[in-house]
Amino acid sequence: MTELLLATRNAKKLVELRRILEAAGVTGIEVLGLGDVPEFAEAPETGATFEDNALAKATDAARATGIAAVADDSGLEVDALNGMPGVLSARWSGKHGDDAGNLELLLGQLTDVPDERRGAAFVSAAALVRPDGAQTVVRGEWRGSVIAEQRGSNGFGYDPSFVPEGGTRTAAELSAEEKDADSHRGRALQQLLPALRELAG
Amino acid sequence: MTELLLATRNAKKLVELRRILEAAGVTGIEVLGLGDVPEFAEAPETGATFEDNALAKATDAARATGIAAVADDSGLEVDALNGMPGVLSARWSGKHGDDAGNLELLLGQLTDVPDERRGAAFVSAAALVRPDGAQTVVRGEWRGSVIAEQRGSNGFGYDPSFVPEGGTRTAAELSAEEKDADSHRGRALQQLLPALRELAG
Repeated sequence: MTELLLATRNAKKLVELRRILEAAGVTGIEVLGLGDVPEFAEAPETGATFEDNALAKATDAARATGIAAVADDSGLEVDALNGMPGVLSARWSGKHGDDAGNLELLLGQLTDVPDERRGAAFVSAAALVRPDGAQTVVRGEWRGSVIAEQRGSNGFGYDPSFVPEGGTRTAAELSAEEKDADSHRGRALQQLLPALRELAG
Repeated sequence: MTELLLATRNAKKLVELRRILEAAGVTGIEVLGLGDVPEFAEAPETGATFEDNALAKATDAARATGIAAVADDSGLEVDALNGMPGVLSARWSGKHGDDAGNLELLLGQLTDVPDERRGAAFVSAAALVRPDGAQTVVRGEWRGSVIAEQRGSNGFGYDPSFVPEGGTRTAAELSAEEKDADSHRGRALQQLLPALRELAG
């Protein structure tokens, strides 16, 4: 088995990557999380773009552990906020990882914004860095709009108020399989599959 | 005396406009505030630009009262937030007019943003609408940067953390006269002076 470190402490992301690899028939890769390499401390995400952050995280993790590492940085770009929260999505309320507070703040900011200006896109950049330093960086996008209510309990972050284009359900009302096929992170990880297949050997 | 309605309930803005008119030697204009015309209710500011909002407010006020009206819409455009809070500056925390909460939120969002990406501009659009419908719209900008601390007690809004270019003091540490000369709203109102002089007759 080739070890692959997913540079995250988010258990849902680990499950997601394992599910996508399995569905794609990529075997021979054991996906570890940061919980499995306690010696490695993540640096703060201070890049100006998702790509910067994903690449910095994967590079740090691969260097520190000697294991091939995948990292992603994802967020919601809201048209009426000129593309923000963007790279600040996870700490929009000023408090890192406060999902409920971040979403509540966003909905408050959009209170007076009319429907026709509530377009948004979930964006994810994913980077694979191999122990020899070789890099692959990809990007996935998922267009939709931000509604005023919150619906559904699958997913996390801004999912309960994001309705993907062409649908009526929120991202938090979709099944894991539906999200893998369409979502920003699903699309980014799909694009990493050729490189991961090669890694598996 | 020609009456001029400044479409605001902010007493500091009334004082500011009266001071600027006096300094410019424009006499013959009596500046009223919305407190003087209780029959008029402001519409929410839902425009996508400062100019849209200023013009909509001045137009509404002039129509409802038959008095020439000036309105402004101002805010802080932060580079690292793609120009936001922008038109949402006064309700950035999701709660309208919560100055302390808005500033605290902004500083929280910028916590990990390095100094070289903390540039910002205060922007103000001001509109004059005369009873006959004639319109003048102008814009003033004030470049600077957002510091992590809060200093000074003059001013309001984001002033305590905004250091204008070429200076070391925050906008809240400047005197009213210094602000009139340099600030975004000062610059916008200066540009309205020719039209206001004409109105005074």
